[in-house]
Parts: sequence; structure tokens; C-alpha cells
Amino acid sequence: MKIAVLAGDGIGPEITGQAERILLALRSDGLKLELEPGLLGGCAVDAAGEPFPEITRRLVKEADAVLLGAVGSPKYDGLPREKRPEQGLLAIRKELNLFANLRPAILYPELASVSSLKPEIVSNLDILIVRELTGDIYFGQPRGIERREGQRVGFNTMIYTEAEINRIAHVAFQAARKRKGRLCSVDKMNVLECTQLWRDVVTETGKEYPDVKLSHMLVDNAAMQLVRDPKQFDVIVTGNMFGDILSDEASMLTGSIGMLPSASLDDRNKGLYEPIHGSAPDIAGKDLANPLATILSIAMMLRYSFAQEEVAMRIEHAVRKVLAQGFRTSDIYEPGMKKVGTREMGDAVLANL
Amino acid sequence: MKIAVLAGDGIGPEITGQAERILLALRSDGLKLELEPGLLGGCAVDAAGEPFPEITRRLVKEADAVLLGAVGSPKYDGLPREKRPEQGLLAIRKELNLFANLRPAILYPELASVSSLKPEIVSNLDILIVRELTGDIYFGQPRGIERREGQRVGFNTMIYTEAEINRIAHVAFQAARKRKGRLCSVDKMNVLECTQLWRDVVTETGKEYPDVKLSHMLVDNAAMQLVRDPKQFDVIVTGNMFGDILSDEASMLTGSIGMLPSASLDDRNKGLYEPIHGSAPDIAGKDLANPLATILSIAMMLRYSFAQEEVAMRIEHAVRKVLAQGFRTSDIYEPGMKKVGTREMGDAVLANL
Ligand SMILES: CC(C)[C@H](C(=O)O)[C@@H](O)C(=O)O
Ligand SMILES: CC(C)[C@H](C(=O)O)[C@@H](O)C(=O)O
Repeated sequence: MKIAVLAGDGIGPEITGQAERILLALRSDGLKLELEPGLLGGCAVDAAGEPFPEITRRLVKEADAVLLGAVGSPKYDGLPREKRPEQGLLAIRKELNLFANLRPAILYPELASVSSLKPEIVSNLDILIVRELTGDIYFGQPRGIERREGQRVGFNTMIYTEAEINRIAHVAFQAARKRKGRLCSVDKMNVLECTQLWRDVVTETGKEYPDVKLSHMLVDNAAMQLVRDPKQFDVIVTGNMFGDILSDEASMLTGSIGMLPSASLDDRNKGLYEPIHGSAPDIAGKDLANPLATILSIAMMLRYSFAQEEVAMRIEHAVRKVLAQGFRTSDIYEPGMKKVGTREMGDAVLANL
Repeated sequence: MKIAVLAGDGIGPEITGQAERILLALRSDGLKLELEPGLLGGCAVDAAGEPFPEITRRLVKEADAVLLGAVGSPKYDGLPREKRPEQGLLAIRKELNLFANLRPAILYPELASVSSLKPEIVSNLDILIVRELTGDIYFGQPRGIERREGQRVGFNTMIYTEAEINRIAHVAFQAARKRKGRLCSVDKMNVLECTQLWRDVVTETGKEYPDVKLSHMLVDNAAMQLVRDPKQFDVIVTGNMFGDILSDEASMLTGSIGMLPSASLDDRNKGLYEPIHGSAPDIAGKDLANPLATILSIAMMLRYSFAQEEVAMRIEHAVRKVLAQGFRTSDIYEPGMKKVGTREMGDAVLANL
């Protein structure tokens, strides 16, 4: 199992550092794996002049899975668009055909009071958002800023083909089947033809999954329902743009985005795994970042790319124990708990593994 | 002052009915106004075969302001796109050039515990969302569903011109100036060129408002920050699509969307005023709907279209008193309060006026 480790920017190196310690411990335990470091994002711009250099491209093509820390920093805001760190992320998704982004929003009972929502609204929250990741307005052509009749005009194209919708729908239906059997597809069919097609195709695909209860919701309503009563959802499937917004909203419901991992998969279980939080340049290098989302991303990697369900669960249990023992980085700290830094949190997980 | 009243579908007639009673009471008090009923949405489809008939078009063109109840019902889901009730709403916005949608998200102290968020997170919440309403992917061309290389493809165009961004930015800066002087512009500039132009033009416009503190936020982060700490915002300005999502999310933070009015304005203070909630077909005709959002929409009308600040405040005070007296429709009901229907709530406001 060859794993490319792209630490990225900001707190990236610190949090992937702790995840690597876990992986190395599992290797001593007998798991066959190789770690290969690579550059993506701002650090790649600094070192190689572009956010997704050819050498990284080759590395991730050959790897069986990719672990990513986080990319981006306001430091690069002034660069031309194609040189910005986020372009590296978009390029790697497209290059590896990572069309299925799985983002769980789980509230750990130990952290229930960290949420800004009332405990009864979010306790035991367990939603999975399936976001299409290689299509939509993120990649649609034509796009740009032009001068027309004496003024600037900015434009982008939202576009989905039947095949793109169909394949992400299958991923979502299959995920729902393994959970509570409910899938809510989110669109804006009352305004956008593109998402009318989305609704039509998801409905058609649903005929193959009579055991899954399919419903549809408009995106504005979904944004409301996530706040009003998030536990009504099991699996949500939506396009790239709406998924970007709703998955961030959903993760914040838990109050602990430092805890949430994600997987981005192609059609053969190759995947990129990363915490859903950003590169947090303000706390970088200070041993303050929460490494648990990255450590839980390894669990997802072992589950989805390497079919090592048991090892995945070992990691997840270790994280639960660490929370039960009261270890907290500052993002999830509450009075009475043990405040620890990035490295000590890694120690605690290792000790429980 | 000629006011077109478009009751619309579902609970529309009931809630505009109560608002009309208030307007008529103000007329007896000396306010010069005329009410003219018209059809929009599903009721217009039923009566005239289209959601925005020519006769309604003429009525609203001549009126100084429009009061709208709500449009839409699943009953019309099977109709071709151009006949659906929502198309009436989009068409009237475009026809009257109502580019500036003002949506306050206010939490009334009396209703603090109705919210799904913790009271300390939302108490005294007072945000104004300024949403561009006649551009963006809502109206962009080309759009449609086509067959290409043997499969269906759906597409829409997100597009903004410099002039469109500039004029909504002015509205937002001026609103911020009258409030706490802070404006947050929301975009997705790291992915979408269209919104890169948005950020550039808003920044340029901001030079004319050195007294307003301008900040920028990515839409995914904004969706999170609204949940994490909504009180960090004063005025938010954004495009039509993001505004649709974020304004619904923001209004749900208050837990009482039955309380929230909205104004959609052109560049000469003509406006359409409507509650932000929908047509709620499930409770239509049952005297259950909360008329307060519609009544507060009249207050906005008197303020923005007719410069009757004093009368607007009289209505708003009456609504506050009614809440203080414990009157509650079922959407905001809590034990210990007086549960009332739509009409009784109207009575209570009238009594306090
Ligand atoms: C950094 C950005 C391009 C990216 C996205 O919008 O997809 C991020 O927000 C995410 O959700 O992974
Ligand atoms: C009904 C629909 C077309 C409309 C919109 O998306 O603008 C509604 O959601 C709104 O926000 O007024």
C-alpha cells in the first residue's frame, strides 16, 4: 500500500505529522505500507513555481491513496489564479478523477456542548454528505472575465452530464443502503435546468435501489433544514457547488470541524483523504492544531482504499477513548478537560491504539 | 399610494388578508392609499393559464408598491417549467427591475428560545442580507437541457456585469452606513471568475464609503460562520444564488421564519414586499398561518417605498407588543403563551396599533 503524503500549507505538516506516526505504528504492527512525501498547494508554489507540479502528479498517479493536510494561505492571494494553492487541489481532484466526496458530519457525544446548536437538536447527529467533486460550475466551460460593450463581465458555466450524475447517484444510494436507507438529493430544479436534469437522473437511478427511500429538497430549504432539524437526514447527495456550501454548514453544526475527516474517491477505490478544515495559517507552527480529523481521515483511507475495516475501527475507537479520557485541543476545549497540543494529542491516540 | 396586492397561493390569501386589514385601518387614520388585487403564481395559472398574466403585469407596472403573499404548490410540479408558479415570481422581479432584495434576520427577544441555536449565540441577532435579485445564474444565458453525444446535458450560466455588481454594492454600503457600518461581501473567488469580478467591483465601490468597514468571505465559510457565530455580521451582500441559500439559512437561525419580512427594490424605491416564508400548502385555509411576517412587510413598504418611517415604526411596535402580550401562532408557540389563529393575530395587532 503506497500512500502519498501531501502535508500542504499552514498547519498541514503538523497534523499530517501525527497521522504519519499512527501509520508507522500500524506498520510496526504488521500493516504493509509505504509513505512518500510530496508537495501540493502554496508550498509547491514556493518550491516549484506551481501548486500541482509534475513530480507530484507522477507521485499521486502511482500511489494507492493520498493523505492531504491542508492547502492555502492569504499569502498567495495576490498570485494569478492558476498559481493559487486551491488550484492544486482542484487539479489533483480532476487528475485522479476523484468524483465522489464523502463528508460525514458526526457529533461525538463527548463534544455535544461544543456545538452552537441546542444539544437536543444535534446530539447523536450522524449525516453523510456525498458531494460530486469533478464537475459542475467548478470545471464548466466557458468561464472567465471579459470586456463587453465597455464593461467587465464575469461568467462561469454550471454543467452536468447524465453520466456524471448517474455515477455519483450510485455512490450515494450504495452508501445509504449501508446506513439508515434514506437519501435526500438536493437541487434547485425550480430555477436551474442543470439541476432539473440532476433530479431527473437521480430519480431514474433510484429505480435500481427500491430499498432506499429517496427524497428531493431545494438547496435553500436544505440550508434551512440543516439548522432547524439536522437529524432528519441520513445521506445527502448534491452537486459540487451546493455540496461545498452545505457540507461546510453541516460540519459546523457539530461545533468541532477539527474532528471531521473526508474521502474523495475515484471509481476504483483510490482516494484522497483530508480533514475538512482548512490550513489555519494563524495557528500554524504553534502546536495548537487538532490532529484528530487527519487521524480519522486515515481510518477512512484504510476502510475505503484498503478494505481494512478492522484497523479503521481500531483508529476510530482510539479517538473515542482519547475524547472519553478528556484530552482536548484548544478548538474543542471546555473547562474541566485536559488541554493538549497537537503532538500530545497524537501521543494520546497512539497510547490508545 | 397605489398598492397591488397579489395574495398568491396556499396561505397567501390568509396572510395578505390580515395585512390588508392593517392597511385599511391606516387609511381610516388618514393615510392615502388604494389597494388593487391581482393574480400571481399558481392561482394565475388556474385562472389565466400563466403564472404572470398580462393583466397582472399592467397592474404592478402602474402600482407604487406590491404586496405579495406567497406563490407555489406541489400541485403545479408536473407543469412545464414556464408555467410553474415560481416563474411568475422570477418574471415580476425582472419586469419591475427589483434588483435589491433586503432580507433582515432579526431575533425578537420574546422568541429567543424558539431558535434551534443556543440562546447566547442568537440573542439580539440583527443581520441584514442584501441579495442581488435580477442577475446571476437565475437569468444567465445560455441555459437548458440538451442531448449531446447520446446523453442529456444540463447547463446554466452564472454571469454578472460590472454595472450590476456596482449598483447592488451601493445599496449594501448605504444600508451598512445606516446600521453598524460593517459590510461583508460573500463570493467564491477562489474557484469562480464571475465572483472574482464580484469581489473586485465591490472593493472598488467601497472606496466611496471609507466609513464602512468592508470584508470578504468565501461562501462555504459564510455558511459555517452563520452557524458558528452569526452575530459577527452586520450587513451581508452577495449574488442571487448564494443569497438564496444564505438568506434562508440566516432566517432559520432565528427559529421563526413566520416573523421575517423582505423587500425587493428597484432604483427608484418602487418595491415588492413579501414574507420570506413559503406558501405552506399543508396548512392553507386552516387559520393557522402566522401573518406577522406579512404585516412586517407592510412596515418595510411604508418605510422604503413611501418614506413613512413613523407609520412603519407604529406597525413594528404593535407587533412587538403583541409578542410581549404572549400572542403566538402555532409556529412560534411555547407552553404558557396564548395560542391564536391567523385572524386573531391580526386582531391583536390592530388592537395595538
Ligand atoms: C479550497 C476550495 C477550492 C475547496 C472547494 O471549494 O472545493 C474547499 O472549499 C473544499 O471544500 O474542499
Ligand atoms: C421560489 C424561488 C424561485 C425563489 C428564489 O429562488 O429566488 C425563492 O426561493 C426565494 O428566495 O424568493
